[in-house]
Amino acid sequence: MKPAILLATGPWNPKLWEGPLAAADPDRPVFTYPDVPDRAAVRYALLWKSPADALARLPNLAAIFSLGAGVDHVVGLDLPPVPIVRIVDPDLTMRMTEHVVLHVLYHHRKIPQYQEQQKKHIWRELRQPAANAVRVGIMGLGELGRDAADVLVRLGFQVSGWSRTAKAVPGVACFAGADGLAPFLARTDILVVLLPLTPGTRGILDRRVFEGLARDGALPGPVVINAGRGGLQNEADLLAALDDGTLAGASLDVFVNEPLAKESRFWDHPRVMLTPHAAASSEASALAPGILAQIEAFERGEPLRNLVDRERAY
Amino acid sequence: MKPAILLATGPWNPKLWEGPLAAADPDRPVFTYPDVPDRAAVRYALLWKSPADALARLPNLAAIFSLGAGVDHVVGLDLPPVPIVRIVDPDLTMRMTEHVVLHVLYHHRKIPQYQEQQKKHIWRELRQPAANAVRVGIMGLGELGRDAADVLVRLGFQVSGWSRTAKAVPGVACFAGADGLAPFLARTDILVVLLPLTPGTRGILDRRVFEGLARDGALPGPVVINAGRGGLQNEADLLAALDDGTLAGASLDVFVNEPLAKESRFWDHPRVMLTPHAAASSEASALAPGILAQIEAFERGEPLRNLVDRERAY
Ligand SMILES: NC(=O)c1ccc[n+]([C@@H]2O[C@H](COP(=O)([O-])OP(=O)(O)OC[C@H]3O[C@@H](n4cnc5c(N)ncnc54)[C@H](OP(=O)(O)O)[C@@H]3O)[C@@H](O)[C@H]2O)c1
Ligand SMILES: NC(=O)c1ccc[n+]([C@@H]2O[C@H](COP(=O)([O-])OP(=O)(O)OC[C@H]3O[C@@H](n4cnc5c(N)ncnc54)[C@H](OP(=O)(O)O)[C@@H]3O)[C@@H](O)[C@H]2O)c1
Repeated sequence: MKPAILLATGPWNPKLWEGPLAAADPDRPVFTYPDVPDRAAVRYALLWKSPADALARLPNLAAIFSLGAGVDHVVGLDLPPVPIVRIVDPDLTMRMTEHVVLHVLYHHRKIPQYQEQQKKHIWRELRQPAANAVRVGIMGLGELGRDAADVLVRLGFQVSGWSRTAKAVPGVACFAGADGLAPFLARTDILVVLLPLTPGTRGILDRRVFEGLARDGALPGPVVINAGRGGLQNEADLLAALDDGTLAGASLDVFVNEPLAKESRFWDHPRVMLTPHAAASSEASALAPGILAQIEAFERGEPLRNLVDRERAY
Repeated sequence: MKPAILLATGPWNPKLWEGPLAAADPDRPVFTYPDVPDRAAVRYALLWKSPADALARLPNLAAIFSLGAGVDHVVGLDLPPVPIVRIVDPDLTMRMTEHVVLHVLYHHRKIPQYQEQQKKHIWRELRQPAANAVRVGIMGLGELGRDAADVLVRLGFQVSGWSRTAKAVPGVACFAGADGLAPFLARTDILVVLLPLTPGTRGILDRRVFEGLARDGALPGPVVINAGRGGLQNEADLLAALDDGTLAGASLDVFVNEPLAKESRFWDHPRVMLTPHAAASSEASALAPGILAQIEAFERGEPLRNLVDRERAY
């Protein structure tokens, strides 16, 4: 009998994961929280937005797997001191790159204005800078940020990136740390946010950042695309910046409180394109085989990959 | 004195071209149609949607340059038998690739549905196939089709292409000629049209083509993105296919008659995203230096590049 998995998917329907896990390895027992018939059998926990309780009293727990790339839902919990693994998978990465490329082009190519013109039956071509006249700055040059950067470079944009530690990415102007933030923002027309939510990044998208973006660019004004986490944005500052034109537009996939309240002003804001935390969903059928393969490798004695650093909180 | 250019920009404001041409070569005389003080001095004509008359009585005309990639506005005319050169330029190509990638992702990522949900304050994630479950078929594997294909392959889509003569493009399933059309369509969820308008392609997008597209794909139904020419599409068939659901959506940049009539049904069709022939505009400041460089090279005795074959009509 293989050591068991405990599946705790929080707000997600656990059936989405049970099937793909069973399909990928029918011999691996999977218990779905809170139904855990044999606590001692559990060696791995697959977790998404669940209470710390879900992992209490598991004497043989050896590793925790976050079912998404982000681990802000895990690292704050009072958890057993076992390694935490997060999702790094081409399927997830490519979905995020689609989202980022789509929303960069959506603003760059003036889709909101063209949709407005279409409604009014207006046939008018709008002047359009070439991609190489537009500067895209990516906050977060991790697994997701680097892949999006690669395609944006291919499309001809001037791409820069900002990270905690210094990076070198081909074709990308790299900035790092507190000192690098202002010069990074000053050369950014379209800001793409792919940071993790940590004590160091919470609320980072505030008025100071919005006002620090370039205002001398080829677009009518700076744009923010946040596909990281809602907690990164100060939503009062964000709304004020959208209201007063400090920001010309925003594509927002994430919010401080999700689902976004029906009465939130973001829904009807003319400068906002809103998606419901759908930028890069964790598709169980694509991700389950990789998680199970990591578990098998771990049981053969190989080290776990994509470990979270609890100190950094990502 | 260098041989002169005659500039005939038809519906475009000639000033858009006069400035960049003068900036790129102040020594090259440029006459703007119909004001041609010295017909014998004219050796080159730069043409966009102008009457054949514009080129009459130019005894020393040596070459005609189309100011766009498409030459359907030229090849039908009764013109002097000199070479016709068309625009092939990275600036134009990259603009078209932006347009194609944007509209493929727009349909793939269900932007119309998300915009509908936003209007109604509905927070609901929609299931989303990975790019590698979606088949994009490109009609026309020329300068523009191949570059768009390259980025779509990078994004993970299954890409195929269709051309007149057989092609081999890395990562792209290639089909050619009349026999290749049905199998090409049958494996296409999103049809991208980048054909030239010629006697062989006029009206090619008809009911038979729309019905030939895949209906077993990961998207709700097939989508057409036409950024080639309006004359490629049978507009009665296209509207009928959109009405009855044969097509789930369309991004249309070009129409049989442009500007599109105020009363056209395309404007308000819920399945249509419409742009005003803006997919890849000819930016004079980007293109003028290349045209003048070709002229200089020609005068040094080098052959003209990107020649139009009048027989093929592209
Ligand atoms: N909306 C969605 O559907 C969705 C889906 C998946 C993921 N996400 C979000 O995307 C985030 C990024 O994912 P990933 O896989 O790319 O993460 P990652 O590989 O861990 O990369 C994180 C990047 O952020 C940088 N960073 C972290 N803290 C920083 C700080 N205080 N200052 C400056 N830079 C900092 C890191 O810098 P270093 O390189 O120096 O370490 C790194 O470049 C996830 O954490 C998650 O929140 C959202
Ligand atoms: N909407 C806009 O803003 C915009 C801007 C620029 C261009 N355009 C349009 O885009 C078109 C394509 O430009 P391009 O530079 O890529 O042209 P291109 O390099 O000449 O390529 C044309 C492609 O179409 C194929 N083709 C031609 N006739 C065909 C037929 N009867 N059956 C099957 N395939 C056929 C050619 O096949 P072979 O490879 O076998 O020759 C070639 O692959 C232009 O002609 C223009 O109409 C639109």
